[in-house]
Amino acid sequence: MSVSNEPNKFQAVISHAKEYGFIFQSSEIYDGLSAVYDYGPWGSELKKNIREYWWNSMTRMHDNIVGIDAAIFMHPTTWKASGHVDNFSDPMIDNKDSKKRYRVDHLIEGHADALRGEGDAAGADALLATMDQLLAAEDYAGLKQLIQDAKIVDAVSGTANWTDVRQFNLMFSTQLGSVAEDASEIYLRPETAQGIFVNFLNVQKTARMKVPFGIAQVGKAFRNEIVARQFTFRMREFEQMEMQFFVRPGSEMEWYNYWKQERMNWHLALGFSPDRYRFHDHVKLAHYANAAVDIEFDFPFGFKEVEGIHSRTDYDLSQHQKYSGKKLQYFDTEINQNYVPYVIETSIGLDRTVLYVLCESYAEEDIPKEDGSKDSRVVLRIPPRIAPIKLAVLPLTKKDGLPEIARDLMKECREDFYCFYEEKDNIGKRYRRMDAIGTPFCATIDHQTKEDQAVTIRERDSMTQQRVPLSEVREWVKLRTR
Amino acid sequence: MSVSNEPNKFQAVISHAKEYGFIFQSSEIYDGLSAVYDYGPWGSELKKNIREYWWNSMTRMHDNIVGIDAAIFMHPTTWKASGHVDNFSDPMIDNKDSKKRYRVDHLIEGHADALRGEGDAAGADALLATMDQLLAAEDYAGLKQLIQDAKIVDAVSGTANWTDVRQFNLMFSTQLGSVAEDASEIYLRPETAQGIFVNFLNVQKTARMKVPFGIAQVGKAFRNEIVARQFTFRMREFEQMEMQFFVRPGSEMEWYNYWKQERMNWHLALGFSPDRYRFHDHVKLAHYANAAVDIEFDFPFGFKEVEGIHSRTDYDLSQHQKYSGKKLQYFDTEINQNYVPYVIETSIGLDRTVLYVLCESYAEEDIPKEDGSKDSRVVLRIPPRIAPIKLAVLPLTKKDGLPEIARDLMKECREDFYCFYEEKDNIGKRYRRMDAIGTPFCATIDHQTKEDQAVTIRERDSMTQQRVPLSEVREWVKLRTR
Repeated sequence: MSVSNEPNKFQAVISHAKEYGFIFQSSEIYDGLSAVYDYGPWGSELKKNIREYWWNSMTRMHDNIVGIDAAIFMHPTTWKASGHVDNFSDPMIDNKDSKKRYRVDHLIEGHADALRGEGDAAGADALLATMDQLLAAEDYAGLKQLIQDAKIVDAVSGTANWTDVRQFNLMFSTQLGSVAEDASEIYLRPETAQGIFVNFLNVQKTARMKVPFGIAQVGKAFRNEIVARQFTFRMREFEQMEMQFFVRPGSEMEWYNYWKQERMNWHLALGFSPDRYRFHDHVKLAHYANAAVDIEFDFPFGFKEVEGIHSRTDYDLSQHQKYSGKKLQYFDTEINQNYVPYVIETSIGLDRTVLYVLCESYAEEDIPKEDGSKDSRVVLRIPPRIAPIKLAVLPLTKKDGLPEIARDLMKECREDFYCFYEEKDNIGKRYRRMDAIGTPFCATIDHQTKEDQAVTIRERDSMTQQRVPLSEVREWVKLRTR
Repeated sequence: MSVSNEPNKFQAVISHAKEYGFIFQSSEIYDGLSAVYDYGPWGSELKKNIREYWWNSMTRMHDNIVGIDAAIFMHPTTWKASGHVDNFSDPMIDNKDSKKRYRVDHLIEGHADALRGEGDAAGADALLATMDQLLAAEDYAGLKQLIQDAKIVDAVSGTANWTDVRQFNLMFSTQLGSVAEDASEIYLRPETAQGIFVNFLNVQKTARMKVPFGIAQVGKAFRNEIVARQFTFRMREFEQMEMQFFVRPGSEMEWYNYWKQERMNWHLALGFSPDRYRFHDHVKLAHYANAAVDIEFDFPFGFKEVEGIHSRTDYDLSQHQKYSGKKLQYFDTEINQNYVPYVIETSIGLDRTVLYVLCESYAEEDIPKEDGSKDSRVVLRIPPRIAPIKLAVLPLTKKDGLPEIARDLMKECREDFYCFYEEKDNIGKRYRRMDAIGTPFCATIDHQTKEDQAVTIRERDSMTQQRVPLSEVREWVKLRTR
């Protein structure tokens, strides 16, 4: 059944997403903006439904997790304290002739690939091993020397006329304020987490939370990625769903394991096959972490990260304490002790989740017809609870009072879930269109409806049909889409 | 009952919003960021509920309106076409001694106020009349002359040593891309509307819409306001809820009037008194509009805009057609004609709506006690359908099995709406806390519950209590909070 890893599947998904109103390139009429995308009518509903499913499962279903909605703009010292000003960067090098800039690791990796293509696998391996050492040591002079020694030339200019290696920060910056003297450089947040950390005490006190407790947030983050690729997988503007869970020092591994499993369960509850997911432990940990694991999904281009669970220790709160001069501590009445809590973070990419749902839902199917010939369809098997439209209401014809009955059904159901009314084209075509946007149920109002006060509900995946009394449709669909 | 316009009320609302976890200053531990705010646990729920109420009422309840979710980043030509690069600016002047920058109109208005304070009302009126003429004529040399003739001095330096008057654009800009050659200046969108216009054809075609139809969107917008003030009323980062309704040319006034009334009805459906709202027609129209009206709310600081309904003509689509070279037209099969649709826009500030709900909900009340003495409370009479928490579940004591019954009730109800469990402090204190964050219903589990399988539900506004069977609580609350 699964057709992932087929080379053409990803292209088919991208085309389908465009053609059926899920995802458009940003500013397409102006030939687009690199690595930025817009969600269309059904993509925005799908995204919203996943966001709500996450939000409700994290806040409403937990006594000890509350939400916040912090601004994208934050005081610039935030990013000094978090380490982003100094460390959130990639080493880059410019070719003086072509004026092109490259990420050092990409440039060297490209050369290693070329060596391998020429049969020099040992040379390629040695080159990459040296590069890894120099990158780890942040030895930029050494990296430049390596590029020169390997005689790497720019593909555009053909020369080896390189600048020094420099750090390039991935944060977007802008100027806040108009008064010439007061204007300050601020950043677009590269992660939502810091909005939670700086509000730690405000939330703990006003919502009267006791450790262990969590703060959840959904919002945009921005990274000036050098190489943005794979459609919406790596974008310069993206949406994160993060939860920071504050715990007593020493208990962090227990909670790390708890949230690792909880978050995997959340993904599995969507209903896709468990073998599409796997854990991937971080070998090299970030400077703030003492344990980290990714939840990866098997995209058509391989297993890739969709969520990270990180044990961030007390790094962030301690840093903010240091830079702000304000105490960010908690008095634990159970053990009569003041401490800076440790933090377990769960951080999931909303856009990546939308993307994996689209990839995994997408199927091209042959359908046997009664006359022995074959028909085909494209169907999005989106889990009903996050499907953009829950029910299509389709009068078989435009006359004989059928549209009126359909209208009454729409009116009854649309307060509870998203319904879609359509009366154009034959019923088969209408089913196909609903398949293509992932609508789990279609209710057809036919002439018999006037006699038996019932409709035919056709199910998307099995294409089976059953008769359901008009008066029960609302609850019938609600039960199957929650 | 209404205590708005009381001078201290607004300050009380701001303090309350902070103390009870609705709104915090951004990056408060770093002494804040001017005109940027974060929403705390209950503020973020309130904001989310208003957002959903708007989204559902605009998209789900209308066959002919669909949503999108466009990125904040857009191709820079978008803002050239929309007129924002050239026109979205204020005339500013700098004092060369203090290095302070001022909006020209604010500087002159301040001087007029001073004249009026000195008894020279005629002089103040004449000054403002001249200023209005010069602003309308965009006569910057004339404005500088006016400032000099009126002998306006800088409050900081005390001198009249002014620069020329210059335009200052309100858009935030940043650099996209890392390759030195390719890096381009882009803007943070100052309004969400353009994300809808550039996607007009994509949406119309993929969602098979027929004129008249609408496209709705909720999202962040950014304006580098010179003078940000009145708490969250005017912020540099804010959230808009916009709908652009595309109509046949010539029918725009009909639809303008329709949406004017529809949008007012939406506000009124929240349940506040109709006399808190009024229409305010624009006398001076923006360059793209042929009719415009504001819906104003009576804040503690007076009637102010919360939503605008604008007849934008075919200005935006025509401009994008011109700048992109792509046709943005619709073929109307009913009249066999191709045209650029006209647009009616409804644009509401989400943050301003949250703010007016907080202001209007806030009440300080005296409560007569049985012994003849008086008690008092602060209550947020937030409309139940948008209240952060719908039901508090309160076991009278922590023992005798009452918490277990409360837990079962929580478990049953939290799938449908936001519940809050609390067992600490006496019941009166718990009621007060729920009053202060606007929870419409509190269910108390007492010893009798074990006998009669019922709870006492206490209503926030009337403070009346009634006995409701445990098995009916879920539906009882749902019915009263939708």
